[in-house]
Amino acid sequence: MRIVSLLSLNAHIKHFTFSPAPAKAPRMSKKQKPFRPKARRPRGFEDKPAELLRAERKLIDAAFSVYDMNGFEPLQTPAFEFADVLGKFLPDDDRPNTGVFALQDDDEQWLSLRYDLTAPLARFVAENYDALAKPYRRYQAGSVYRNEKPGPGRFREFVQCDADSVGAAGPAADAEMIMLAAEVMRAAGLKDGQYAVRVNNRKLLDGILESSGVPNTDEGAVQRLQVLRAIDKLDRLGEDGVEALLGAGREDESGDYTDGAKLNPAGIKAVLGFTTASDPDRGNTISTLEGLVGDSARGREGCAELAAIDKILTATGFGPDRVSFDTSIVRGLGYYTGPVFEAELLADIRDRKGRPVRIGSIGGGGRYDDLVSRFRGQQVPATGFSFGVSRFLSALDRMNAVEDSVKPPVIICAFDKSLMGEYFKMAAELRAEGIRAEVFVGAGNVTKQMKYADRRNAQIAVLVGSDELEKGEVTLKDLYEGAKAAKAIESNEEWKSSRPAQETVARGNFVSAVKAMLG
Amino acid sequence: MRIVSLLSLNAHIKHFTFSPAPAKAPRMSKKQKPFRPKARRPRGFEDKPAELLRAERKLIDAAFSVYDMNGFEPLQTPAFEFADVLGKFLPDDDRPNTGVFALQDDDEQWLSLRYDLTAPLARFVAENYDALAKPYRRYQAGSVYRNEKPGPGRFREFVQCDADSVGAAGPAADAEMIMLAAEVMRAAGLKDGQYAVRVNNRKLLDGILESSGVPNTDEGAVQRLQVLRAIDKLDRLGEDGVEALLGAGREDESGDYTDGAKLNPAGIKAVLGFTTASDPDRGNTISTLEGLVGDSARGREGCAELAAIDKILTATGFGPDRVSFDTSIVRGLGYYTGPVFEAELLADIRDRKGRPVRIGSIGGGGRYDDLVSRFRGQQVPATGFSFGVSRFLSALDRMNAVEDSVKPPVIICAFDKSLMGEYFKMAAELRAEGIRAEVFVGAGNVTKQMKYADRRNAQIAVLVGSDELEKGEVTLKDLYEGAKAAKAIESNEEWKSSRPAQETVARGNFVSAVKAMLG
Repeated sequence: MRIVSLLSLNAHIKHFTFSPAPAKAPRMSKKQKPFRPKARRPRGFEDKPAELLRAERKLIDAAFSVYDMNGFEPLQTPAFEFADVLGKFLPDDDRPNTGVFALQDDDEQWLSLRYDLTAPLARFVAENYDALAKPYRRYQAGSVYRNEKPGPGRFREFVQCDADSVGAAGPAADAEMIMLAAEVMRAAGLKDGQYAVRVNNRKLLDGILESSGVPNTDEGAVQRLQVLRAIDKLDRLGEDGVEALLGAGREDESGDYTDGAKLNPAGIKAVLGFTTASDPDRGNTISTLEGLVGDSARGREGCAELAAIDKILTATGFGPDRVSFDTSIVRGLGYYTGPVFEAELLADIRDRKGRPVRIGSIGGGGRYDDLVSRFRGQQVPATGFSFGVSRFLSALDRMNAVEDSVKPPVIICAFDKSLMGEYFKMAAELRAEGIRAEVFVGAGNVTKQMKYADRRNAQIAVLVGSDELEKGEVTLKDLYEGAKAAKAIESNEEWKSSRPAQETVARGNFVSAVKAMLG
Repeated sequence: MRIVSLLSLNAHIKHFTFSPAPAKAPRMSKKQKPFRPKARRPRGFEDKPAELLRAERKLIDAAFSVYDMNGFEPLQTPAFEFADVLGKFLPDDDRPNTGVFALQDDDEQWLSLRYDLTAPLARFVAENYDALAKPYRRYQAGSVYRNEKPGPGRFREFVQCDADSVGAAGPAADAEMIMLAAEVMRAAGLKDGQYAVRVNNRKLLDGILESSGVPNTDEGAVQRLQVLRAIDKLDRLGEDGVEALLGAGREDESGDYTDGAKLNPAGIKAVLGFTTASDPDRGNTISTLEGLVGDSARGREGCAELAAIDKILTATGFGPDRVSFDTSIVRGLGYYTGPVFEAELLADIRDRKGRPVRIGSIGGGGRYDDLVSRFRGQQVPATGFSFGVSRFLSALDRMNAVEDSVKPPVIICAFDKSLMGEYFKMAAELRAEGIRAEVFVGAGNVTKQMKYADRRNAQIAVLVGSDELEKGEVTLKDLYEGAKAAKAIESNEEWKSSRPAQETVARGNFVSAVKAMLG
């Protein structure tokens, strides 16, 4: 599961009201006037442009490379799953107007498009349980679908990238996922200090609540969820607001009343103490937590797991600058069963108006031991890390950490159709030297072709007519220098460009001349 | 469009009969017994394993790199389109029980999952027409969906990889796509001679039929389609069968009667002459075709286009060993408007029993000038190339041309939980030297861990206990050599392996010892 927190949305099987009308659009009116559909996209679905796609591919490749080096294997499950197999795992069940995309197959069975990559993994593991070497550690990136109200930056189809480890119960597997998260941050081009992986353990709060009279069973489930939701609002409501939500309840400014978790005063104090227990030193945090969980077996288990994780992190050189323990991390309501963590970008990010932007976490994960059990009736330990590719990229983009690695092509202009063969030969010569190049294959005169080169943001246009070819000459236009020159003339300043905007070179030397011009 | 020919299937909006029953599966029976869904996949959908995925990624990357170098830009359109926008472009409309996956959105509009990457491109171009520098040349790879009866090797979700050039009417754009197809074959690791791109031109047959009294208008559309279908059966039915289908019609062995195209004897002769007009020399083929099309303007246009393509191919060094003219290529019925081509693998491919396997084309393309016109009411020239990723890969696999570039990881066994930090440190040291490595994070004794290493096909297992660590020693087990030794002992032969199956090395030298053992 492990949904990027700001996108942390709910999904349930939507009850479509299917009209009996034919799905086919009318193609002809009565007058045989051709039907012209309007070219438009369904809301919440996007066309991704070149730069974004290249950056996405680079980010996913970087993550995949980390997972590969750590012995994980790729898996790709299909977009469709049976609706009953997919189930309903997303947290926050009470949110309205959200759902999955579902349709009925020929044989009346309901199919759903995956809303994450974890539910399909659970199905895959359950289906192939005996054939898999365990721990089974896989990674996967792909589109997931949410049939809900789209908004700015919130799509109904988006790409997640997940790594999961199934079949390992111990904290070593969690430590591994946490280290992988930090390694992915580095692989994405971030420097240490520009990101943080913050770790908590679900068992700690369970333990503290147990010590405060909330039983660690199904009976206490509603209260635990209320407490998690209250803690998640610490940033927004402050300590007083959270205190109210942990106790009797809270009326907000609009007069809406939220029922509280009804903890006793000692419980409220313990929970508030817990959320602020973190210290930059991981060992200190563990000591504080050991005090807070008291006699609760579950709480002590949580502390021991953090200690084991700390030992591995420290031995492997993952210092507190990369991974810290942070008890304010909630990470998905009621879903995780042990260690949980979030990956956050720390750089000073500002919007176009220079105001600081809070990116929030770009991904996270944790232990979820119950997922496969719905198929098999027995717990299968699992832990994983997931990030939202677009969310991560938009954060990187704001940090100016995204570079387009592909340069615009050299454009070979085509003035004389009888020379097309020569033009393609020249483009091939450039490509043989690693230079991106294309022949203008459209229609249009010099002006139109120059405009095309300009819109492609090309630096160099190559011009050859039959006269030039006879003389063995080729003209190279440096469009960047040309634009500078034009600007200088416009602004009436003296133009001091050290490089000429145009150059005539020998056909035999044209590749090296292009190289020199590209610099 | 340009569907891989053997997968060339039809799609139309399916009229689902949606049950009003809730889609949600019951989670609890009356007795509160938990609901256990069976872990299973919908038919026609597959889980892709690691080796296949790595090979797919490599193939797609290779194609993308060719497109990038030639100045194409990536685009990703969403999985969903409005049903009326997607329209119905697949050929062979008369095939039953085939369709697209469709569902109704909140606002009652029908959405369809894309069945190819071309119809969404048409929508994208129409939607952004003025903003695009033309020719607009994009590439895209992604899953497409066909709601039809699956079969062996025939899935309801599969990956296509397309490149298209929109806005260029001349044969130079077609020549470019043809050369790109040949370049993709090379980039996929094939040698010249192991593949062929075969080019035809739809206008040629139109011209021949026009000369035989089939008007080159909508009136003759049914007859033209019948002729194309007849030619497409040349391999299966032979010349006599095709002759019958071009004339009155044909009864097959089961007694089914197929109506013929009702050409006159001269027309039948011309069409049969056309299908066998190809010569290894492209120039000779053009000469023969010029004779066959006679006075037909459309036919002559087709010949002139092939001549222009030949000129570009020849100048750029694409000889007849890479690209040939082949009049037997049909390539999708009634869809293309000019040059069409297929990419075929030529290597001697055999199945597991050594029988020769006919792979057919792994992709193809051509000119389709009518696609965007349904939105804009005017023709927009377009040409493209598409291949089926799985089909291409399975062909490469049969040629043993697929290499798994990722080696199995070195497995650091975990015997002593108190040493987990040390184990992870050792794995990190190996990775720092570029060696894939993992710590066993599961549960289990030596035997179980060795079995895991074996199932992962690992060559090296690293063994360290606290005693060894104190002595500064590490044991490396070469599992490949060990297996050889075990086999030798089993078969009672003398074991002459030159390398030991096990080695104890100093902790400080263990990375270089692993390197040496990997060889």
